[in-house]
Amino acid sequence: MKQNYKTLFENHLKSLYAKPLDQTLDEAMMYSLLAGGKRIRPVLLFSTLELLQVDPKKGLSVATAIEMIHTYSLIHDDLPAMDDDDYRRGKLTNHKVFGEAVAILAGDGLLTDSFAQISKDESLNLEQRIQLITLISEAAGTRGMVGGQMLDIKAEESELTLEELKRVHRHKTGDLIKACFVCAGFIAEQPTDVLKQLSEIGQRFGLIFQIKDDILDVEGNFEQMGKAVGSDENNAKSTYVSLLGLEGAKEAMQTLNKETLELISSLNGDHSALNDLLQYIISREK
Amino acid sequence: MKQNYKTLFENHLKSLYAKPLDQTLDEAMMYSLLAGGKRIRPVLLFSTLELLQVDPKKGLSVATAIEMIHTYSLIHDDLPAMDDDDYRRGKLTNHKVFGEAVAILAGDGLLTDSFAQISKDESLNLEQRIQLITLISEAAGTRGMVGGQMLDIKAEESELTLEELKRVHRHKTGDLIKACFVCAGFIAEQPTDVLKQLSEIGQRFGLIFQIKDDILDVEGNFEQMGKAVGSDENNAKSTYVSLLGLEGAKEAMQTLNKETLELISSLNGDHSALNDLLQYIISREK
Repeated sequence: MKQNYKTLFENHLKSLYAKPLDQTLDEAMMYSLLAGGKRIRPVLLFSTLELLQVDPKKGLSVATAIEMIHTYSLIHDDLPAMDDDDYRRGKLTNHKVFGEAVAILAGDGLLTDSFAQISKDESLNLEQRIQLITLISEAAGTRGMVGGQMLDIKAEESELTLEELKRVHRHKTGDLIKACFVCAGFIAEQPTDVLKQLSEIGQRFGLIFQIKDDILDVEGNFEQMGKAVGSDENNAKSTYVSLLGLEGAKEAMQTLNKETLELISSLNGDHSALNDLLQYIISREK
Repeated sequence: MKQNYKTLFENHLKSLYAKPLDQTLDEAMMYSLLAGGKRIRPVLLFSTLELLQVDPKKGLSVATAIEMIHTYSLIHDDLPAMDDDDYRRGKLTNHKVFGEAVAILAGDGLLTDSFAQISKDESLNLEQRIQLITLISEAAGTRGMVGGQMLDIKAEESELTLEELKRVHRHKTGDLIKACFVCAGFIAEQPTDVLKQLSEIGQRFGLIFQIKDDILDVEGNFEQMGKAVGSDENNAKSTYVSLLGLEGAKEAMQTLNKETLELISSLNGDHSALNDLLQYIISREK
């Protein structure tokens, strides 16, 4: 099922940017959009819609917008002035192929265009579109993802407490992952209590995702990951593993897993797609 | 009158970012937002609203969003990988003060946050907010401003024809300036024919603005401009002056001025604020 969503979604992505103003800019955006990501965020959105008994296709524009935003953030994150990474998902990073100026513009373009994806989707009513745009702008903006990236940059200068580390990741990766769940709630026109429940589930998914990332940075290898591993330890960066130990991080992830499964089971509907996805995130090897 | 709008607007800008997630990021954004720009775009929007007999305050959120987008584009444009400028408006550029990583994030943050400015403005109805977000996302995105910046980068490699130069500027600076006029039309709930008229006026304003910029690059000086002048000639960059000559560029600007005044006079309302603004743009010395 997850694979079907991924295929549906990737076919949709390929249809974007059909009429270029500039060919190079479009190539640069499509290079990173189609670089073989896991599509975790879109699939989270589609799976949550399935649980809420809404046709996942109704989430296509929002999933696209979120993936465009996620992709822009990776392009900018990889820049020499930021993480200075040469590889991402086993391929050269955007600026290594197209140069820094184009990479900056490709990121800016994906981010800017993402909002029109939602605002022009007439299968959603006006109120839904406004709710979704507000949520995504805030989750991705300076009180969300961008703010979290800033906290992350500062964190490199000092050792963090567990609470400080959680704060970094709650914003840097958590807010946009959480937004996938709440967006599904908006699309399915759910009442406030369900939205709150979805937000709680999303927050835990974000945390689990990050803890697993930190574990993989220790246990993974370049071939599986498609990017440099062990970089956290080399950079003396605070991670869940450095603060809790490898076993401690795995235990924390399992505790969150249990909580999340309970929260999911309290929602009405077929929980299987979302439960499967949670297990995939926890057991993934890249 | 123009000065009043500017003061109203700047007081509003100062109220943004009152609750920082990260102090440095907010400082970096505010540094560039409050760096003493001319506020041409907000004042164009307010003046058009005045002509259309709508309280200019109703355009505050949209003016803020557009100025945030304009500001982000300057921050990214000044980066070493782009134009590599040290000064802007007589002050050090963002990355010279805060470093490249923060400047990239400050730009990303301003851009992302700009959409929530509009989506959360309850003084506009849902349809207006969706129209405005679509228009601004498209005017600033890869088919608008970002695409134009890409064309501009490529243009540095070759000599342009007048038509090619117009195409660069129609997108790079023109689309967002034109959007100010059409946004005012949406806020004032104007019919299609007036929206079309506003778009025609906006397109000419954008062109006039750019021709004047090219003239100032030849005739201005650092003290007035607050940035390096003569840079176009040093870079052998195609400009209206290089293609038409200084007198030819001035004539083209006067022809457009006449056309624009006629278009403005065909709209119902008090034309003085917009006419004054046009004369200000044409006669400005920085």
